Amino acid sequence: MIKQYIQENESRMQEELFSLIRIPSISSESKHQPDMLRCAERWRELLIAAGADRAEVMPTEGNPMVYAERIIDAQAPTVLIYGHYDVMPVEPLNLWHSDPFEPVIRDGHIFARGADDDKGQSFIQAKAFEYLTQNGLLKHNVKFILEGEEEIGSPSLETFCEQHKQLLKADIVLVSDTSMLSAELPSLTTGLRGLSYWQVEVTGPNRDLHSGHFGGAVMNPINALCKMIAQLTDADGRITIPHFYDDVEEVSAEEREMIAHIPFDEEKYKAAIGIKDVFGEKGYSTLERNSCRPSFDCCGIWGGYTGEGAKTVIPSKAYAKISTRLVPHQNSEKIAQLVAQHLQSIAPTGVTVKVEYLHGGEGYVCPISLPAYKAAEKGFELAFGKRPLPVRRGGSIPIIATFEKVLGIKTILMGFGLESNAIHSPNENMPLSMIRRGIEAVAHFHLFFDEV
Amino acid sequence: MIKQYIQENESRMQEELFSLIRIPSISSESKHQPDMLRCAERWRELLIAAGADRAEVMPTEGNPMVYAERIIDAQAPTVLIYGHYDVMPVEPLNLWHSDPFEPVIRDGHIFARGADDDKGQSFIQAKAFEYLTQNGLLKHNVKFILEGEEEIGSPSLETFCEQHKQLLKADIVLVSDTSMLSAELPSLTTGLRGLSYWQVEVTGPNRDLHSGHFGGAVMNPINALCKMIAQLTDADGRITIPHFYDDVEEVSAEEREMIAHIPFDEEKYKAAIGIKDVFGEKGYSTLERNSCRPSFDCCGIWGGYTGEGAKTVIPSKAYAKISTRLVPHQNSEKIAQLVAQHLQSIAPTGVTVKVEYLHGGEGYVCPISLPAYKAAEKGFELAFGKRPLPVRRGGSIPIIATFEKVLGIKTILMGFGLESNAIHSPNENMPLSMIRRGIEAVAHFHLFFDEV
Repeated sequence: MIKQYIQENESRMQEELFSLIRIPSISSESKHQPDMLRCAERWRELLIAAGADRAEVMPTEGNPMVYAERIIDAQAPTVLIYGHYDVMPVEPLNLWHSDPFEPVIRDGHIFARGADDDKGQSFIQAKAFEYLTQNGLLKHNVKFILEGEEEIGSPSLETFCEQHKQLLKADIVLVSDTSMLSAELPSLTTGLRGLSYWQVEVTGPNRDLHSGHFGGAVMNPINALCKMIAQLTDADGRITIPHFYDDVEEVSAEEREMIAHIPFDEEKYKAAIGIKDVFGEKGYSTLERNSCRPSFDCCGIWGGYTGEGAKTVIPSKAYAKISTRLVPHQNSEKIAQLVAQHLQSIAPTGVTVKVEYLHGGEGYVCPISLPAYKAAEKGFELAFGKRPLPVRRGGSIPIIATFEKVLGIKTILMGFGLESNAIHSPNENMPLSMIRRGIEAVAHFHLFFDEV
Repeated sequence: MIKQYIQENESRMQEELFSLIRIPSISSESKHQPDMLRCAERWRELLIAAGADRAEVMPTEGNPMVYAERIIDAQAPTVLIYGHYDVMPVEPLNLWHSDPFEPVIRDGHIFARGADDDKGQSFIQAKAFEYLTQNGLLKHNVKFILEGEEEIGSPSLETFCEQHKQLLKADIVLVSDTSMLSAELPSLTTGLRGLSYWQVEVTGPNRDLHSGHFGGAVMNPINALCKMIAQLTDADGRITIPHFYDDVEEVSAEEREMIAHIPFDEEKYKAAIGIKDVFGEKGYSTLERNSCRPSFDCCGIWGGYTGEGAKTVIPSKAYAKISTRLVPHQNSEKIAQLVAQHLQSIAPTGVTVKVEYLHGGEGYVCPISLPAYKAAEKGFELAFGKRPLPVRRGGSIPIIATFEKVLGIKTILMGFGLESNAIHSPNENMPLSMIRRGIEAVAHFHLFFDEV
């Protein structure tokens, strides 16, 4: 019945999704502010059309929230569905094979920014909800909250939750913003990493200097920045910031055993991303390194002359955007302080260092014994024909920890992304087949949720 | 008499110089190619007007050369004047107080790209020549060669010299493209450093990756590039590339003694460029470090997300422009190979490194016993009222070594730049007083040159 519903409505649904994707709602670029409101408004319309009996665009300090609900019975349990309508920047544009904001279908995949993260995945939730309401199958209450600042660290969400505890009251949060191991290996995400993200500015001389007249006598801020970043990790892939690992929970022997049994082909993994060798913390496997262990990455760096040809210059300034992924129990604010202090302490002679904390959030672990987890497991099993594996993932959705802290609710992560969807990268895409199966899985989740 | 000539002709001269400056002849940016030809053509007109009996714009593989001559007597000695009409890029544009290509006079200084390097300084040579020809004072032959690729390493000059040995035949080369210690401390440059310049490209994964999904398991190319650059110098400011110092001539005790007596206020130096501490090779003074010792500088770096806010990405690629200044006896090609090999050898696991050699050239030492050096010394003494100090400088004019190698001629470096002229930087400028005194000094050089 659900399969038939999807088939009969697919072309309309696709146009609805495209209408969301076409709005370039890049939250990190202030010029897109009007697009944020347009996108929120479009979501409001779509949620009403899908069956919400109330839907609003609600202001925050930053980009607005979309809130919608369908209240079946004040006594019935409530599922709060979270998603986000903002997307990542699209640079480098020249690597896209088509306009990132004009979705096209090639080989059964939608190609566009947001096709997966998170317009595509949130849309799955909305359409499963639509199926249930249109067919009178919804037996519990459903609330939606869609935010416009997830990709910049959800600065307004915590306050919004604090201010609207009653409105957001629910028994479980449901999120589609993660990925599965592969289309053949359905999995449910039971853990996420936390995050801290900084911008570092290194200042040397008060103006760009001629590298011939000054070279050798003055600390070059790019040289200095490189030395600082280089020192933050050692040859064994360990982060060298003092006390960084203090709160890191060692992965248990049982969990390591379970991870070791996840089908994973390292040669295929390397081939898929075009690297000769993996590299990471000594003593841990690739799957452990990218899910249960912290990491340090320089996400961007710039300074000096970056144009064509050569310019012999000692620049006045050099910049980097650096981030760490954190594991449960590490506190992002504490890490933010450790890193800022450490960067100041290792600043080379002759430069000054400014560290700006951009955002952060905590990791999360979901117990697989939760009834709602069981419902999600069954939903996946019906849609994909296989019982999903419980796995921890390396990404961060800091707000999951916020929901637990502020609203006191656990979250179920029913993610339908695939590795090859290239989220945050050029040519982000989403297979149409995953959207269809996602809608099925979520619809079944709701149906099983009433039973467990 | 020369003072009077300058005074009577100053406003015309200024307009002539401005007409050169207004042409944005940036050799490193291919879009400026038409400007190169325009600038060469303008120089040709000005040299004819100044008294050349022949002037031509001559093609090369790259930007054209301007050649001009005034032959007084085939048996008389010949002075070959070298300059360059190309200029450096102007970024960062927002730091300029006025349009870099629309010269303005503020507080007795001309502000514009090229006001000093090298349009202003070459202009001094042209106007001294004009004075001598217009007043029948020139007793030897004068040739001019102005190139349009000095700022990108003079890729066509060596071949041009090889092909025009007869045309360029001369007894001495005279160049105004260096600076003095200060307006009160006239000096003649007796040594220059060499240069090697590379672009380094580090490639990790075949596309930008999500730092959550991959962070910790994959070598990040920015992390890798920083580690590589950080390793190239040690905590004592020494370059760590094996065999880098093999051919470095140790500065003699006498020369160090002479350098120690150059009036130099390190506190003023630091204050002028806004740094708290100098930094450089252990065991050497600042003046030694920036003139007689090699140096390593990262002139530019870029990779990953550099826009507003945060993007959690492991980029596919990271880039740097790196350069070393070399001292006499170090061979730039040999160093180019050493560095390229070393960079490959220290490439971290999981990335590939491409090293592109952009350009280079050798250092130079001028014996102060040369008769032409004595003439320059006297010219300076008359114009500035003080005998100039012989000093080695840290910049590079690789073609000086080329003139010696190909044409067999030594070069006299009569430079009129000042530290505060900010060449290669925003707000490049040139004091009008230095242009006047420069013209005087060069005119006297020619007059003394006939005597020595």
